[in-house]
Amino acid sequence: MMYDAAVIGAGPAGITAALYLVRSGVSVALIENAAPGGQILATAEIENYPGFPKSVKGWELADLFDAHLAEYPVVRVRGEVSAVEQAEGFFRLALAEGETVEAKSVVVCTGARHRDLGAPGEDEFRGRGVSYCAVCDGNFYRGRDVIVVGGGNSALEEALYLARIVNKVYLVHRREGFRGAQIYLDKIRATGNIELVTSSVIDEIRGSAAGMGSAAVRNVQTGETRIIEAEGIFVYVGMAPVSGFLPEAVTRDAAGFIVTDAEMCTSVPGIFAAGDIRAKRCRQVSSAVGDGATAATAALSYLEHLNA
Amino acid sequence: MMYDAAVIGAGPAGITAALYLVRSGVSVALIENAAPGGQILATAEIENYPGFPKSVKGWELADLFDAHLAEYPVVRVRGEVSAVEQAEGFFRLALAEGETVEAKSVVVCTGARHRDLGAPGEDEFRGRGVSYCAVCDGNFYRGRDVIVVGGGNSALEEALYLARIVNKVYLVHRREGFRGAQIYLDKIRATGNIELVTSSVIDEIRGSAAGMGSAAVRNVQTGETRIIEAEGIFVYVGMAPVSGFLPEAVTRDAAGFIVTDAEMCTSVPGIFAAGDIRAKRCRQVSSAVGDGATAATAALSYLEHLNA
Repeated sequence: MMYDAAVIGAGPAGITAALYLVRSGVSVALIENAAPGGQILATAEIENYPGFPKSVKGWELADLFDAHLAEYPVVRVRGEVSAVEQAEGFFRLALAEGETVEAKSVVVCTGARHRDLGAPGEDEFRGRGVSYCAVCDGNFYRGRDVIVVGGGNSALEEALYLARIVNKVYLVHRREGFRGAQIYLDKIRATGNIELVTSSVIDEIRGSAAGMGSAAVRNVQTGETRIIEAEGIFVYVGMAPVSGFLPEAVTRDAAGFIVTDAEMCTSVPGIFAAGDIRAKRCRQVSSAVGDGATAATAALSYLEHLNA
Repeated sequence: MMYDAAVIGAGPAGITAALYLVRSGVSVALIENAAPGGQILATAEIENYPGFPKSVKGWELADLFDAHLAEYPVVRVRGEVSAVEQAEGFFRLALAEGETVEAKSVVVCTGARHRDLGAPGEDEFRGRGVSYCAVCDGNFYRGRDVIVVGGGNSALEEALYLARIVNKVYLVHRREGFRGAQIYLDKIRATGNIELVTSSVIDEIRGSAAGMGSAAVRNVQTGETRIIEAEGIFVYVGMAPVSGFLPEAVTRDAAGFIVTDAEMCTSVPGIFAAGDIRAKRCRQVSSAVGDGATAATAALSYLEHLNA
């Protein structure tokens, strides 16, 4: 069947876009390659999605988003889109699993993936000490010492989360100052078991057959290397967009994020983008939800003109 | 005192902008001239704010937003901004009440007000039959007949809301087709006590000292006028932006809505806009919240450069 809209990705942006589209009476396929919720599943507590004054756990909000969409007849397709091909008045989406989905419009909400640290030992100890998700893996390190790498909100949030579980957190950041919100820094300074290790980079992750045991951490100002004993390292050094499957004609920035106007239109009529896949500054649940509603509105307007 | 940011308006956009700003450690004054919540206070049920799968009452969501912000040290100023004057590196906001607020950046979230119908009798019976808010006034018409005017989502939503309270709803719209979401139209058609009166306009609102008694409704295709007996009329014929207090230099569209880029920057550096005050297509709680977070991010970036 030919869908009016295919939404790719079931994070906050994709779920919101699908919600608005289906409520407007058009047929929607939501293509998801992981559990609904996207990055919020990898976030412990979400304090800044308006409407949840006492904060909400990431998985709880993901469940609420999923339950919200479940009230409506959206066709949910499990799979990963490997290519989008433009046809006469519609798009053909090839899934890695072999299936094909056809739709008159496409809303890209594929978000971004965590970047690797790029340090020796990272691949070797992945899943045996190296993690990119404190909520997923934090519990394995209860009472142990861990390292968190990064200087943005994700690193600060996850350091705070881990500090409540583990014995000690070393927060390693390559710069002297942090990019994250002051409120998190204040909390971190008030937390007894987080040590800030600034102007420092991870040179190597070391361990044994049993798993990670330590990391070589070099101070970029003094050049001195310190060995930090830790059984876990949580990496929050930025995000890479998932946009490689799109046709060349969809304009992206140098890092691969999709360029849109304020209405979420891309350079290709009929293809819209919402959430973290966009080239933009604000990467939050709130703005993903706003993007999703806006993209759906733009897609509906496109469909109306298409059918006119 | 000089605030880092003044946020004007306490609807979803303003509350979210203030929340993001204060969480980032900057000083924030939120200037509000009505109860927090903005237009959601005038909405019965909100079905499409993600995270509330069973829908949420407008006043409940407004309370949640307000409680969310109350967790943070935002200075809340009661008043209506009558003018914004650009000074050296900051802005001076004059309140109608006489007070002055000074801030290095301004986020305009003043939204839009309901437009009047412009029919004879509208002023005379305002508050005695003529209303712009079903949630506020619907209860006065329990068991009576009322008219709803409009063809967008607001009109459809409020017609459905009123149908559960009153005896009968006449939904009068000047066009043959409705602009609102199909899901609302389907519900309206399935509701026994809503009569659609399309291609029709209100020529006059009539009544006595006791209040409104009827309306003269003219079919614009046949020219015939029909008198509909009704004690209430709820008007949803569009919104007018509240932007007249801003300096000339802030670019607006022909209707007065503020033009921004995708980061919520206006034509004046240091002045940002979010929510329904913007020239845009999607006017929803979801997108207001997204706008607020995005505008706060842009304002923080502006403040960082200002202080650099």
